[in-house]
Amino acid sequence: MSSTKKRVLVTGAEGTIGTAVRENLADRYELHALTREPSGFPSIVADIADLDAIQPAFEGMDAVVHLAASAAVETPWDDILPNNLIGTYNVFEAARCAGVERVVFASSNHTIGWYEYESQPDVYRIDDPRVWDETVPVRPDSLYGVSKVYGEALGRHYVDRYGLRVFCLRIGTVTKDDDPRAASVTANSPALLNLPPDERLNRMRCTWLSQRDCCQLIQRCLDDEDLSWAVVYGISNNPRQFWSLKSARELLGYAPEDGA
Amino acid sequence: MSSTKKRVLVTGAEGTIGTAVRENLADRYELHALTREPSGFPSIVADIADLDAIQPAFEGMDAVVHLAASAAVETPWDDILPNNLIGTYNVFEAARCAGVERVVFASSNHTIGWYEYESQPDVYRIDDPRVWDETVPVRPDSLYGVSKVYGEALGRHYVDRYGLRVFCLRIGTVTKDDDPRAASVTANSPALLNLPPDERLNRMRCTWLSQRDCCQLIQRCLDDEDLSWAVVYGISNNPRQFWSLKSARELLGYAPEDGA
Repeated sequence: MSSTKKRVLVTGAEGTIGTAVRENLADRYELHALTREPSGFPSIVADIADLDAIQPAFEGMDAVVHLAASAAVETPWDDILPNNLIGTYNVFEAARCAGVERVVFASSNHTIGWYEYESQPDVYRIDDPRVWDETVPVRPDSLYGVSKVYGEALGRHYVDRYGLRVFCLRIGTVTKDDDPRAASVTANSPALLNLPPDERLNRMRCTWLSQRDCCQLIQRCLDDEDLSWAVVYGISNNPRQFWSLKSARELLGYAPEDGA
Repeated sequence: MSSTKKRVLVTGAEGTIGTAVRENLADRYELHALTREPSGFPSIVADIADLDAIQPAFEGMDAVVHLAASAAVETPWDDILPNNLIGTYNVFEAARCAGVERVVFASSNHTIGWYEYESQPDVYRIDDPRVWDETVPVRPDSLYGVSKVYGEALGRHYVDRYGLRVFCLRIGTVTKDDDPRAASVTANSPALLNLPPDERLNRMRCTWLSQRDCCQLIQRCLDDEDLSWAVVYGISNNPRQFWSLKSARELLGYAPEDGA
């Protein structure tokens, strides 16, 4: 029955992950799209930097999947400020004001990216023992990473103070072509800047998250009935992994089906 | 010799801690004051929300003590944004651009304030065993607390990426009258809102940081020659403490002289 489907607002619905969500999860939820510009699909058009403009989109929703942000790792401050700092506050605040129960927040591995940067390229080897989980002190590699630390802290505050349920996904590498062998990763990360092409491919083998696995992870956050708060990493079942999937598996039952 | 004194810029030099720094550390350093409004002492007048306006004040400095912020725990978003989020970015960025070696950042216990809030009033008892240190996951009790988590993450990023040295002080309760027995604490914190006056005094007995000890802690950060990064709590040697001074003592040699 369509009336029993959860109503889910997806911010940044035109992006790579947003598109995957629209393609993979439309049967399961009543999806509503929020985009900054008119898109080739039905969406509410508003800029998350404008709280008044986005507020109506949140009314009546059961959940928000907050993907909208400047996603390039080297995004300059002038874009980080409206799109990631102000925008993320507005999303949590609009959710609270509308009584939305849960927010799935697209955080990032770049919250701790400096550990990788210090350890490359050895950390990309299959026999390298290093694995970082969500308990290590943050070491953002960029203002983008800083903005995601901030978003997680904001989420935790909304959980404690206002009773929202917030799921922070420290997402690996999701690509448009969904192929980990295609060296399509743009060199916009400090972790990538100094890497030759073959090492970029080695990195991708570690950090790849297939669109299918990404959508599974988001689905598990949307369906979970127990947790009020979680911070987990999101990668596929890659033979080499340097971010821990332990919490994603144990807390959310995440069971990735793909691997690079 | 005055020429060998470190040149230290103090932002928010007109505030409670800024005034204490000017009174206690003027002999030891060549202090320069930055204030938003003209004050009754020599200062450079500029708003930290304006990067271009503050940049000249950072030229030639050895260190910055960054105190300027909206300091009330219940500060609304419209003030947190310019004064704490934009302002703190501008301070780190101006320090980097001017080649300033170190920044002492006034962070706050409110980065983890929700642990206290959940545990009051028992946590104020002298026999309560709970102590939180800087390794516990953040649980900000306010947007103010969120802004300090963000400031710490920004500081960490500037350490890793640009080689600054950053010291984050999670400061307890510093008051104008410097007297822990005076129930002068404003009820602007979620941790205080529900507390009767005697419990507020009990809280003060735990969280008090004398102006003298506060200045000692700042001095140790300014004089340290080993660390590039530290996050420590700042309270006096109070008989009851629920934030750990272990790192302040061990990393910085902090030895508080007062106690509530």
